[in-house]
Amino acid sequence: MAYEFKLVRRVEFFETDMAGIVHFSNFFRYMEAAEHGFFRSLGMSIVADVEPPLGWPRVHARCDFKHPLHFEDNVEIHLLVREKRSKSLSYTFRLVKINSAPPVEVARGSITVVCVRHKDGKMQAATIPQAIAERIDVAPTSLLEALND
Amino acid sequence: MAYEFKLVRRVEFFETDMAGIVHFSNFFRYMEAAEHGFFRSLGMSIVADVEPPLGWPRVHARCDFKHPLHFEDNVEIHLLVREKRSKSLSYTFRLVKINSAPPVEVARGSITVVCVRHKDGKMQAATIPQAIAERIDVAPTSLLEALND
Amino acid sequence: MAYEFKLVRRVEFFETDMAGIVHFSNFFRYMEAAEHGFFRSLGMSIVADVEPPLGWPRVHARCDFKHPLHFEDNVEIHLLVREKRSKSLSYTFRLVKINSAPPVEVARGSITVVCVRHKDGKMQAATIPQAIAERIDVAPTSLLEALND
Amino acid sequence: MAYEFKLVRRVEFFETDMAGIVHFSNFFRYMEAAEHGFFRSLGMSIVADVEPPLGWPRVHARCDFKHPLHFEDNVEIHLLVREKRSKSLSYTFRLVKINSAPPVEVARGSITVVCVRHKDGKMQAATIPQAIAERIDVAPTSLLEALND
Repeated sequence: MAYEFKLVRRVEFFETDMAGIVHFSNFFRYMEAAEHGFFRSLGMSIVADVEPPLGWPRVHARCDFKHPLHFEDNVEIHLLVREKRSKSLSYTFRLVKINSAPPVEVARGSITVVCVRHKDGKMQAATIPQAIAERIDVAPTSLLEALND
Repeated sequence: MAYEFKLVRRVEFFETDMAGIVHFSNFFRYMEAAEHGFFRSLGMSIVADVEPPLGWPRVHARCDFKHPLHFEDNVEIHLLVREKRSKSLSYTFRLVKINSAPPVEVARGSITVVCVRHKDGKMQAATIPQAIAERIDVAPTSLLEALND
Repeated sequence: MAYEFKLVRRVEFFETDMAGIVHFSNFFRYMEAAEHGFFRSLGMSIVADVEPPLGWPRVHARCDFKHPLHFEDNVEIHLLVREKRSKSLSYTFRLVKINSAPPVEVARGSITVVCVRHKDGKMQAATIPQAIAERIDVAPTSLLEALND
Repeated sequence: MAYEFKLVRRVEFFETDMAGIVHFSNFFRYMEAAEHGFFRSLGMSIVADVEPPLGWPRVHARCDFKHPLHFEDNVEIHLLVREKRSKSLSYTFRLVKINSAPPVEVARGSITVVCVRHKDGKMQAATIPQAIAERIDVAPTSLLEALND
């Protein structure tokens, strides 16, 4: 069972905007990329080949931006599982620019996803399959509290 | 003085993802598009031609997703000014799919921006210029409360 | 039967990059948006509700960039059908910035799409359904030649 | 002096569209990412800290799409310098899906960039600085011809 994952990305040119910094919407894409990496680290894929197809739509996403990211910055996205319920998962994220000394925390965020089944073109909330749930743990309170400082 | 703005967009193909719905990060782009439309509606541009250059980086963004959006859906993004401080503005958003009868609220969100000046490659929080501040009002409590139901 | 379509878009902030101009990849998204608008202008959608599902993957795309586009520029994307074959369509595009006097041609491009059927998770080239093909005409040579000057 | 570079990327969820495959516009972003990696491999950055600022706008881009890319595919982007002129560079690209056995070529493309100086808000074509030009070589004809088969 695992409750955390770290992903490092280098900022791409197309992720910047005319203000010369990473467009804020891309911070959410970075967080999602860490979620998908977390699943891969557990030997799974967020897009599983099951019937009926499983989905993980987001019901909540938030981010507090503290410092900008620039082209070719290296950003570490640190994911922690904050909450695990029968049909949903909540993640907390910390984004750190690691190509500066010392590293700089640039953002904190949070995403809540719901497990759904696609049926007749509709999405319906579903219990997270046991094979997935049993590999995911909630992070220790101490780690989560450190992120809420 | 104005405190609200409505923008209608048709969902583009490239905004969808393999789940067949608009990628959640694009909801934030829709909200920002409404903010920029709001400025245009006041006879201004979010990118003003002033020296030193002015910027509006986001310090907070959040969204609660209730229903998915699909290709060619028409979505109305309703912006309300929730808070106006000397150096920052907070907006509340309501996204409504209007090509269904009745219309369906698909998301609610919020963005807080800080006014900054670019100086020597750095961004520094700055008082919102009077010419801008005097055109922006805070929405009546009744309207804001309706959004917080 | 129709062979052309014009779409006007206002450049969004998130479409710009740190060079202060629209990222070149977005010119291809503009062209595709015009293609989808063309289909709507014929009373159809590029995403038709048929079984087996129809797709239009791109097999070729090109663009010559002449002038940059900036935030809040209005760009008219002019689509012409250049070639119509049993299983493919080729479009020629002309992008014109119309918020300057006189208007400025900023780019010319071309996209070729193939009609496919999705079957068992695979895409297979398919004859364009007659209901679609009969509404699409090839542009007069004179118009196409004007674009090839 | 160098004339080639290889970059490997894993396809992200947000790069897919409702057809279940990577949106074609992102192939151009992959190619650009390889260009920027090529510069880094030479100890430089495409965004150099020089005065007046240097830019590399694209004047031509094209891509032939042969096979789709899916979520979590690993794609190798192979860049070759095809032409080097005083003010411009042309690159040829080959995109290969390497998580299948045998690997599958999914696309070939080409991008031509012009070196410009930003002056008074305008971009003007400029000679490629010697410090850059002397590190970039044109690929051997044999390699380029292999790509044109």
